[in-house]
Amino acid sequence: MKQIILTGDRPTGNLHVGHYVGSLAERVKLQNSGKYDEIYIMIADAQALTDNAEHPERVRQNIMKVALDYLAVGIDPEKANIFIQSMVPQLTELTFYYMNLVTVSRVQRNPTVKAEIQMRNFEASIPVGFFCYPISQAADITAFNATAVPVGEDQEPMLEQCREIVHKFNTVYGETLTMPQIVLPSNNACMRLPGTDGKAKMSKSLGNCIYLADPEEVVREKIMSMYTDPDHIRVQDPGKLEGNTVFTYLDAFCQPEHFAEFLPDYQSLDELKAHYQRGGLGDVKVKKFLNNVMQSLLSPMRERRAQWEGRLPEVYEILKKGSEIAAETAQGTLDRVRHAMKIDYFTDNGLLK
Amino acid sequence: MKQIILTGDRPTGNLHVGHYVGSLAERVKLQNSGKYDEIYIMIADAQALTDNAEHPERVRQNIMKVALDYLAVGIDPEKANIFIQSMVPQLTELTFYYMNLVTVSRVQRNPTVKAEIQMRNFEASIPVGFFCYPISQAADITAFNATAVPVGEDQEPMLEQCREIVHKFNTVYGETLTMPQIVLPSNNACMRLPGTDGKAKMSKSLGNCIYLADPEEVVREKIMSMYTDPDHIRVQDPGKLEGNTVFTYLDAFCQPEHFAEFLPDYQSLDELKAHYQRGGLGDVKVKKFLNNVMQSLLSPMRERRAQWEGRLPEVYEILKKGSEIAAETAQGTLDRVRHAMKIDYFTDNGLLK
Repeated sequence: MKQIILTGDRPTGNLHVGHYVGSLAERVKLQNSGKYDEIYIMIADAQALTDNAEHPERVRQNIMKVALDYLAVGIDPEKANIFIQSMVPQLTELTFYYMNLVTVSRVQRNPTVKAEIQMRNFEASIPVGFFCYPISQAADITAFNATAVPVGEDQEPMLEQCREIVHKFNTVYGETLTMPQIVLPSNNACMRLPGTDGKAKMSKSLGNCIYLADPEEVVREKIMSMYTDPDHIRVQDPGKLEGNTVFTYLDAFCQPEHFAEFLPDYQSLDELKAHYQRGGLGDVKVKKFLNNVMQSLLSPMRERRAQWEGRLPEVYEILKKGSEIAAETAQGTLDRVRHAMKIDYFTDNGLLK
Repeated sequence: MKQIILTGDRPTGNLHVGHYVGSLAERVKLQNSGKYDEIYIMIADAQALTDNAEHPERVRQNIMKVALDYLAVGIDPEKANIFIQSMVPQLTELTFYYMNLVTVSRVQRNPTVKAEIQMRNFEASIPVGFFCYPISQAADITAFNATAVPVGEDQEPMLEQCREIVHKFNTVYGETLTMPQIVLPSNNACMRLPGTDGKAKMSKSLGNCIYLADPEEVVREKIMSMYTDPDHIRVQDPGKLEGNTVFTYLDAFCQPEHFAEFLPDYQSLDELKAHYQRGGLGDVKVKKFLNNVMQSLLSPMRERRAQWEGRLPEVYEILKKGSEIAAETAQGTLDRVRHAMKIDYFTDNGLLK
């Protein structure tokens, strides 16, 4: 059986290092693993519209940004098919028919939906489209016959919902849809990165994100003013690691080889942490190290981004071609779905039988 | 402005005289009024699937039957465009985007949805698709730029929901969709006909419907065994009109000219009723009169049906062509909707701006 990945992001802003560590890094790794026959990466504008219906320009403006973020982190358009969700209308048709296979109370019980409704203060007035997005996601996943869906643990209930729909569809109409498997991040990088101010939630309005598109100097400034241990006042004071954002970021991004390159006085992160805890290691030194680590990650991304920014019409063509390919694959699934449901009236003359 | 009608039926069984008196008669009248530029009549298979998902064959089997019913009652394919809902995928796309403009609580307050949920014993487990069908109906109506939607009073809340969606869409994205008006039946024929057994609900399982496709003899048998006044035992007994199905049917179908033709002893229905009430008029005589009235209505339908049944491939072509025309019109609306929502990325190079 073909190994196929479906993944993607809502284009509601530039992607930041939290996205990188949480999913983009894993995605590039899977892409380059050679284990997958087809990879579909979806810019989920239609999904973003479910809670931005009144501000479509916010979604539209971010599509090229997200595409550039993808190309910058190393998504290779030769290996992965980047497309725009709303340009694949077959997805709305699949959603429409899957909606008959799920009850309202089942969606209401979905913990991810519950949490997202709370996060958006939607309690009183959830848009129906937002309420239905687990079903729409099932359409996205099955349209491309995805066998593997790399997501964080928090998205497990969404995939469970999709698997239920696949099971129900195949039971009612006969074996048609591919059952997808969740692919959880392979390392501890699945952690949720805090903002640079130590707050759990990264958000544009809080100004506490390091964006993949940030220039070198901006990244340096954000890191140098990062939240650490408020009780670590003098260098000789012992410092705490818990809640210390600089060390959380080092946990996520620092590799053993970074010490030889940027901080040869230490062999490992454990050694650095121990010194910080017993006192005698200043925040500035650790922050400068983190800055070097982050710049070594972001610098090649900046180069790739700069190259693609000089060829925007090519990026546009990648999205256009990608959407055409995606629509073709989705149409194939839709044809099979219609055939299974026996609503392909004009394909087989069935109405006359 | 063009005057455009959208109307239709769920293909879940043969249409009966209740459908005729409740909507089909009005539809033929509107069709022949010359007041409408375009008429779309939808066989709503996708809507029927929202509560028949596990039995698609029930829906499929009834499509040709409903089409024949339409042609039999006098829908003229030269004047009205008959099409199959699921063959117009644009409708699912419109539904998908309208879903963002309606809240879950708003749909829950819809009295028609409430009543239908109760009727289908869905309290505990409404399929999401069924729950969303007011939104899907708004897509059907707006896709064809319908100015007039002829429905019964019980469907008024559905049209109200559609009008809200049109208003919201036009407010958020700019004037795009046509605001539809409800067209209520022009005479008292909008009444709900009871079953032949006097029960309020006509249903196949109760065997109490007179179908438009019933042969002459079957109609006669159904009428001769109709529920009348159980206390009207001897001819000379006074009879009651309330709850007397035969008179309810006469109210719906009898025309003044029927007396000269079939029952010249009486001038009018009022005269007949008065005689029945004071006693001396037997049920059999009234039933025979009703049978003549009904046969004079159904007989030309039978002839037209027989003609079309001999040309089924032509009916198939009418549906196919009708669905193509419908898809073309709906695509035009969808293009305008996408343009208004600014999600026509590849039409205008907007992503590069």
